[in-house]
Amino acid sequence: VRSHKIAVIPGDGIGIEVTASTLAVLRAVQDKIGGFELSFDELDYGSARYKAQGSYTPEGWLDYLRKSDAIFFGAVGDPDVPDHISLWELILPMRQKFQQYINIRPSSILPGIPSRVVGTKPGDLDWVIIRENTEGEYAGQGGRTHVGTEWEVATELAVFTRKGVERVMRFAFETAQSRPRKLLTVVSKSNAQRYGLLLWDEVAEQVSKEYPDVKWDKMLVDAMTVRMVAKPTSLDTIVTTNLHGDILSDLAAGLSGSIGIAHSASLDPTRTSPSLFEPVHGAAFDIMGKDLANPIAAIMSAAEMLRWLGEAEAADLVEKACRQSIAEGKTTGDLGGSLKTSQVTSEVVDILEQL
Amino acid sequence: VRSHKIAVIPGDGIGIEVTASTLAVLRAVQDKIGGFELSFDELDYGSARYKAQGSYTPEGWLDYLRKSDAIFFGAVGDPDVPDHISLWELILPMRQKFQQYINIRPSSILPGIPSRVVGTKPGDLDWVIIRENTEGEYAGQGGRTHVGTEWEVATELAVFTRKGVERVMRFAFETAQSRPRKLLTVVSKSNAQRYGLLLWDEVAEQVSKEYPDVKWDKMLVDAMTVRMVAKPTSLDTIVTTNLHGDILSDLAAGLSGSIGIAHSASLDPTRTSPSLFEPVHGAAFDIMGKDLANPIAAIMSAAEMLRWLGEAEAADLVEKACRQSIAEGKTTGDLGGSLKTSQVTSEVVDILEQL
Ligand SMILES: CC(C)[C@H](C(=O)O)[C@@H](O)C(=O)O
Ligand SMILES: CC(C)[C@H](C(=O)O)[C@@H](O)C(=O)O
Repeated sequence: VRSHKIAVIPGDGIGIEVTASTLAVLRAVQDKIGGFELSFDELDYGSARYKAQGSYTPEGWLDYLRKSDAIFFGAVGDPDVPDHISLWELILPMRQKFQQYINIRPSSILPGIPSRVVGTKPGDLDWVIIRENTEGEYAGQGGRTHVGTEWEVATELAVFTRKGVERVMRFAFETAQSRPRKLLTVVSKSNAQRYGLLLWDEVAEQVSKEYPDVKWDKMLVDAMTVRMVAKPTSLDTIVTTNLHGDILSDLAAGLSGSIGIAHSASLDPTRTSPSLFEPVHGAAFDIMGKDLANPIAAIMSAAEMLRWLGEAEAADLVEKACRQSIAEGKTTGDLGGSLKTSQVTSEVVDILEQL
Repeated sequence: VRSHKIAVIPGDGIGIEVTASTLAVLRAVQDKIGGFELSFDELDYGSARYKAQGSYTPEGWLDYLRKSDAIFFGAVGDPDVPDHISLWELILPMRQKFQQYINIRPSSILPGIPSRVVGTKPGDLDWVIIRENTEGEYAGQGGRTHVGTEWEVATELAVFTRKGVERVMRFAFETAQSRPRKLLTVVSKSNAQRYGLLLWDEVAEQVSKEYPDVKWDKMLVDAMTVRMVAKPTSLDTIVTTNLHGDILSDLAAGLSGSIGIAHSASLDPTRTSPSLFEPVHGAAFDIMGKDLANPIAAIMSAAEMLRWLGEAEAADLVEKACRQSIAEGKTTGDLGGSLKTSQVTSEVVDILEQL
């Protein structure tokens, strides 16, 4: 049997609940199909650890994680800890240190999900958003001078490297090429941001030459939001910077019905380091511990993890089970249903076992 | 009679057409009401000038403009000139040099405009977006090193000053206070951007103390897009950074029905320098010269200009005439009508004369 070692970081808030659901579904699919074995290494990295012991993670955690085949991540964020601390202690270092330079977020209106945009129906908004995930506006450089004075200045330095832009662009053209419409939209804001974002556009031009069968166009991020609302079917694969990808992928989730099903993979396509799979939603302390969280985003992330690990059959089954539970209205409140987290989880497991 | 000297910069593309419409409406309202006199100083600043003479503007243009009471701007952008050149030669220097630190963009679903978001109706999405307009991600600093090599690095430096953040925050709290719901949402991305955006949040906290009657909350820009789609009525006044304001205001225009009516004022609230009024849409070369552009955004911008100049009665009339033409379906194609730019203009003038 093929064996895969998964580092599991439930993290904070509802991250813990949806991770439990996900592991239940993963165990079910493994039992059903056989042929592979997942070992789960559950880690206590997170805000509770920070509050108790002063750090999110033990020393050497990145080297430790490096030995796993993939990382499943729940969520991070705690009302008692400023977000910029929790995120830079836990999720952002993994994306950057493991060179997970691709963040990939598919969006579509699934049957069973009420449409949010007038005139759209299930099957529409079939988008894949590819977000640069290691540099740009999240490079982490910047600082504050004359703190607290009237003349204080704070800066944020966005850093774009040709290498960094080229690799994400190539991945995006390849993704577009692999999809039926072979359509790519490159998003930037190069009219206002003349250095990093202009490099972005230039590299797109250059890389596009290697993919003559891909139809592509450029959009400014502001106009892009209008196009997503007004002409959703004109879009297919989308590639954009770290910050713009953050914004546009949330918008895509909002337009396609729910952030509760939006999932995300942070990939190192070179497979030098482990890739990371997580739901797009956060820790959501307001609904924590109430068995209200929608586990589907987390479970769908895990399906992508299975696919990444080469377990396509298992991935397909998990995805199918999730879709069927939604189509049958077996959903949590955010999707209009009345089930609890635990009930949705059992439904998905049940459906999976029948498939 | 009160007299106001308006610098008129039609600029490029449909900017020229919608400016012509606007001046016709302004002349009509002046004739109708009396008591004030507008003098229009039409300037040829723009891409045609650049292509013919090598520069967008004559020497000393900013000092020259400084003598006007307000600036009306059409649009800039030309297929033959890279956008980052045209914008940094014409529109961005005005915003920055004249310390027009407030960019204000109201959005609402007007009666007569088909709704884009399921469950919204005219009157919903009654938002005022206040965008910082002189610094932040548009500070203009940055550069490129090792250009063209594999190890090229390009940077964009976002600069936030306490002074700059405080003044926009205070304006936003005052705007919120002046509106019935007294509700303000402060948008940033301080979880990922720990310096400039954290300063933003801190200043919001501090300034909020001066406005105890304003209810306010903080949102991350990504989650904000979801809230705009899913809970539009929970929002009223919104304040955000230069780049986020650019993105969110386009999204607001998209959600409320059309970029063709979205208008924008770049204000220096200290009235040291002239303020600038412009439609949100760009030069749109694809429809240029076809009499297809929607002139309403430009005309509504001019209404705001009249208000800024103290001509509230005239401003109200122009706005009312625009709204009525929309409600009666006397619109261009983007709003579902079948009229030309020139016909919409005559309709607005006719309605105005009857009011
Ligand atoms: C938690 C936060 C740092 C993160 C981001 O901005 O990347 C989140 O919003 C996301 O999209 O994964
Ligand atoms: C033309 C461009 C520089 C401008 C901006 O990004 O500010 C435009 O999109 C706007 O919103 O006024």
